Amino acid sequence: MIGLGKMGGNMTARLLRGGQEVVAYDLTPANVKSVQDMGAIPALDLDALISNLAAPRAVWIMVPAGAPTESTIQLLVDRLSPGDIIIDGGNSKWTDSQRRAEMLKDKGLNFVDVGTSGGIWGLTEGYCMMVGGDTQVVESLRPIFEALAPAPSKGWGHVGPSGAGHYTKMVHNGIEYGMMQALAEGFELMRARHELVGDVSQVADIWRTGSVIRSWLLDLTADALLGNPALDELSDYVADSGEGRWTVQDAVELGVPVPVIAASVQTRFYTQQPVSYAGKMLSAMRRAFGGHAVKTIQQPKVEGHVPEVDPLATPGEASTPAGLKGEKQ
Amino acid sequence: MIGLGKMGGNMTARLLRGGQEVVAYDLTPANVKSVQDMGAIPALDLDALISNLAAPRAVWIMVPAGAPTESTIQLLVDRLSPGDIIIDGGNSKWTDSQRRAEMLKDKGLNFVDVGTSGGIWGLTEGYCMMVGGDTQVVESLRPIFEALAPAPSKGWGHVGPSGAGHYTKMVHNGIEYGMMQALAEGFELMRARHELVGDVSQVADIWRTGSVIRSWLLDLTADALLGNPALDELSDYVADSGEGRWTVQDAVELGVPVPVIAASVQTRFYTQQPVSYAGKMLSAMRRAFGGHAVKTIQQPKVEGHVPEVDPLATPGEASTPAGLKGEKQ
Amino acid sequence: MIGLGKMGGNMTARLLRGGQEVVAYDLTPANVKSVQDMGAIPALDLDALISNLAAPRAVWIMVPAGAPTESTIQLLVDRLSPGDIIIDGGNSKWTDSQRRAEMLKDKGLNFVDVGTSGGIWGLTEGYCMMVGGDTQVVESLRPIFEALAPAPSKGWGHVGPSGAGHYTKMVHNGIEYGMMQALAEGFELMRARHELVGDVSQVADIWRTGSVIRSWLLDLTADALLGNPALDELSDYVADSGEGRWTVQDAVELGVPVPVIAASVQTRFYTQQPVSYAGKMLSAMRRAFGGHAVKTIQQPKVEGHVPEVDPLATPGEASTPAGLKGEKQ
Amino acid sequence: MIGLGKMGGNMTARLLRGGQEVVAYDLTPANVKSVQDMGAIPALDLDALISNLAAPRAVWIMVPAGAPTESTIQLLVDRLSPGDIIIDGGNSKWTDSQRRAEMLKDKGLNFVDVGTSGGIWGLTEGYCMMVGGDTQVVESLRPIFEALAPAPSKGWGHVGPSGAGHYTKMVHNGIEYGMMQALAEGFELMRARHELVGDVSQVADIWRTGSVIRSWLLDLTADALLGNPALDELSDYVADSGEGRWTVQDAVELGVPVPVIAASVQTRFYTQQPVSYAGKMLSAMRRAFGGHAVKTIQQPKVEGHVPEVDPLATPGEASTPAGLKGEKQ
Repeated sequence: MIGLGKMGGNMTARLLRGGQEVVAYDLTPANVKSVQDMGAIPALDLDALISNLAAPRAVWIMVPAGAPTESTIQLLVDRLSPGDIIIDGGNSKWTDSQRRAEMLKDKGLNFVDVGTSGGIWGLTEGYCMMVGGDTQVVESLRPIFEALAPAPSKGWGHVGPSGAGHYTKMVHNGIEYGMMQALAEGFELMRARHELVGDVSQVADIWRTGSVIRSWLLDLTADALLGNPALDELSDYVADSGEGRWTVQDAVELGVPVPVIAASVQTRFYTQQPVSYAGKMLSAMRRAFGGHAVKTIQQPKVEGHVPEVDPLATPGEASTPAGLKGEKQ
Repeated sequence: MIGLGKMGGNMTARLLRGGQEVVAYDLTPANVKSVQDMGAIPALDLDALISNLAAPRAVWIMVPAGAPTESTIQLLVDRLSPGDIIIDGGNSKWTDSQRRAEMLKDKGLNFVDVGTSGGIWGLTEGYCMMVGGDTQVVESLRPIFEALAPAPSKGWGHVGPSGAGHYTKMVHNGIEYGMMQALAEGFELMRARHELVGDVSQVADIWRTGSVIRSWLLDLTADALLGNPALDELSDYVADSGEGRWTVQDAVELGVPVPVIAASVQTRFYTQQPVSYAGKMLSAMRRAFGGHAVKTIQQPKVEGHVPEVDPLATPGEASTPAGLKGEKQ
Repeated sequence: MIGLGKMGGNMTARLLRGGQEVVAYDLTPANVKSVQDMGAIPALDLDALISNLAAPRAVWIMVPAGAPTESTIQLLVDRLSPGDIIIDGGNSKWTDSQRRAEMLKDKGLNFVDVGTSGGIWGLTEGYCMMVGGDTQVVESLRPIFEALAPAPSKGWGHVGPSGAGHYTKMVHNGIEYGMMQALAEGFELMRARHELVGDVSQVADIWRTGSVIRSWLLDLTADALLGNPALDELSDYVADSGEGRWTVQDAVELGVPVPVIAASVQTRFYTQQPVSYAGKMLSAMRRAFGGHAVKTIQQPKVEGHVPEVDPLATPGEASTPAGLKGEKQ
Repeated sequence: MIGLGKMGGNMTARLLRGGQEVVAYDLTPANVKSVQDMGAIPALDLDALISNLAAPRAVWIMVPAGAPTESTIQLLVDRLSPGDIIIDGGNSKWTDSQRRAEMLKDKGLNFVDVGTSGGIWGLTEGYCMMVGGDTQVVESLRPIFEALAPAPSKGWGHVGPSGAGHYTKMVHNGIEYGMMQALAEGFELMRARHELVGDVSQVADIWRTGSVIRSWLLDLTADALLGNPALDELSDYVADSGEGRWTVQDAVELGVPVPVIAASVQTRFYTQQPVSYAGKMLSAMRRAFGGHAVKTIQQPKVEGHVPEVDPLATPGEASTPAGLKGEKQ
């Protein structure tokens, strides 16, 4: 196991509990020490890791996607022997995994991509894993997946060739974005109808049992709302990892409509913007009406023309900031 | 219990199992007979139902929303006594429930609106119920709710004044639409990437355990896909009941953005259209370019002008029906 | 003419230029004075207005939609004679106009609803008008519409029965929202690709001539960007009048998909929110993963577990506010 | 000029009218003959084209984006001399143009990418052109752009470095998709409210003059509706060229929300699908409720249970195909 952070550390722990031998390495020696205390064989550098493993080796990488994963694989390529297996359990882009599998194959190495879900809960509940790669290679890793999964025959599977593991994980996260957003919208709506729904945390709790929308995400939501339905201390800034974006881009590539996932991803973009240029431009267009109105008002014939009520406002109109008067169109 | 269809019949059964006495009425005598066999007291008309109940009566209506519910309530108003309770457990619009509560109050009658979720599974798993009305009245019905719910203290609650029960049920269904659509999009995308994901039913099954998106809707999806990942025999027509529409309309009323729920509802509209007028109009605009192109081609100077390759087509362009050539814009 | 604000004042001016006689009234005497100077017959109260008009009278109301329009009509009902015509040229909801037409008909009065577009530019360029009402009544007002319109036979028309004028104006504004948003998105995107597109105001200017998207809104946009492509001084808060909302609500009522108009309206809602509760809830769900992670970290076995790189972050992930660490899902 | 289709042929004609000398080549000799008749110098192969041009040469390519453009450029690279200019006026992807500019620069050749809008109307009204490339090179082509543009100083401009021309054209088309969809939605809505709006072609005509949404696309729409408001003969299948997709993908890459453009593109995807897998899946989920209902009905205790009215239907519910009964959720 390379990378002993929240994910890799817990996975090492679960593997050890499952009776697996694990050689563990992390850039931070304290992390290595932690899992050593649980029974892992410590490795303080990559060479030590490799020399502690008998061929054919299975090296599980659990580091951030992108550059860290890329450089880790490059370092391994020079050190591993034909027949060894590199497993990428992170959130890599599936096209990267396809490319890496190809590159490693040319060097006689095997590559397995594993989309891993479950977060920190995986330690106790097991990890949901979607596995991509050659059948024989994946089969050879079966004991590892069975130890990590919620149950030996549940919550994991070999879903397709290289890239398929990370691809299905990407789609999983796209769906997750949509489900989260659906819940968030419903709760915001109930908050706005506060004269009817006094306590949204109670509603969340009710829905957990017997309703059609009962789900793990609802469970988490109900817990989060408990005693704090206003979510006072939280920012409304919502980060996004790459998977949601990749899902939308691939759907557009394939001509598959994904209006809900696309809306979920783009809604996060709104929360990430300090100011919306598009909003400013809409204001500019609206002012273009009003601005010209001002010009017209300065013409002699309508001088001093001050309407008591703004004939351009409508009852449904929200209050406008100074200088941006509503217009009649 | 008035209305012994799939919902009312099963609820009567669950109430009887819970030790409650139920007087049951339905327009169809066979339905009354069915629950009589389980122990319900049969009533062959509304008068019989009422005379079989001691005041203060609790009359649960489980008939379709809209006209059937309205007329049932009207019939009851003339027959009930002050202090009696009418419970509407159907999918009524919350504003109707507010209006009815007001109208009944004027006559000394109590009204309780119950948003009921769980469908046919409710018989065995219990019904999730969101209850609106006056606290004292709702409290007086506690034994009924405890018998119907998944557990005496779980899956039901008094969420607010009259209308709140149906309002929260409406929002529940709005969220449900969004979750269903998120799942559907993800699976359609995987089907389109069939070179990577050979069997979406396997992926659904994997996700059921340990993943972030594990949920009852995913369970149903996995069951539906099992042995039939192509969903061959199914239409892509998707009906919608009123709740999704009402959710969007109320959100727009309140200025609450619900992009995912709105997209979910509108996507169903697409499936319901035999032909899209908007699509025809887009075609018309595109042809307006092409049509004028044709006119120009008929001018003498470019007569006989037949390009070997269509310079207006682009590689990404899908094939167009005859007469609707792609245009360069 | 009742209501001499930016719209009513200019319309009075255009009517006078067109050779029409106008009796003008406004709550603010100065407004009356302004149009009196242009040749209008002044009226300082409603009774004066009515006594200055010969039956059958045509009274054009140009006051804000909602309560002001409602109360003005109520005041007129008691003062007008059978056969008189009330014209509502404001942004009233079409169902209100239908109701008012019915109510007035019962009293022998005629009602004409006019959706009016063109804003302050209408004074010089003419008003685009969609007219609803009985054919004979609308015909009797032809000279008025011909004087207000851009040209006697252009830019106005009798589009249907009562309500149709305001209905088509509502749809016009819905389309307008969509067009404005499309432009705003495109320009924001070019601003984000500033390494390629240095000056979006130049692009706007280029597109004004010969492009497929040439339009009056683009003209206004190009003018607004000129010399100020950053739109520095503008807020990104975008107000909305009722028409966009009503358009979406009616489309949902009818089962017509309007994804673009719905997105445009809802996007404005985002700009109107000081803070998004939905965003906070998404953060809460994300923290629920991280929060449980924290709990796990406090368990003895993984104490002191500090990953050098966050294994849960991905390269595509935007920076998160303190306390909201990215999660691996 | 290489490529004498609808675009290249007309552009050659406009260049000749503008007093430019043009050497013209097309795979189809008849196309060459057509422009020869207008005064162009014919070339029957690429070598002839090049030998007819004095260095430094300006070679305008007007062939389909993708493979045809790529292969044409490759053929030219081997034949041109340092200092020569290749101009790509097609709908190439901007990243392709950036790559090609780089590749050609290495060989001493110049590259200019021109996003060209205006379609077949360009012959008479002029072409709107967004030009990317080195300033000096673009300047050297000024006479060509001035001849093709609607006016020498209008409708064209040098917008940025290589790729910027095609990038701005891509965004232009993204905006165009949004505007088209906004119009289409509005007209579909009015068609659905046919009791109010009898003739949408009349409304389109009215809006052309004086309204806020007046635009070239509205002009085309009004023409298309004239005498045929039902658009009877048209398919609702709407093709898409690559630009809309690329716009969405780039916006997602940059984290810029483009809900309207994304909805427009995805709506076309719906029209392109013979059947929606997502729709089938939603039906499957709905049936999962109903299917279990059926199972329950087969249980002895509720045998023969046939509700007179379906307690699961709601008044707002659209009619469902056989076997897909509405469910109570």
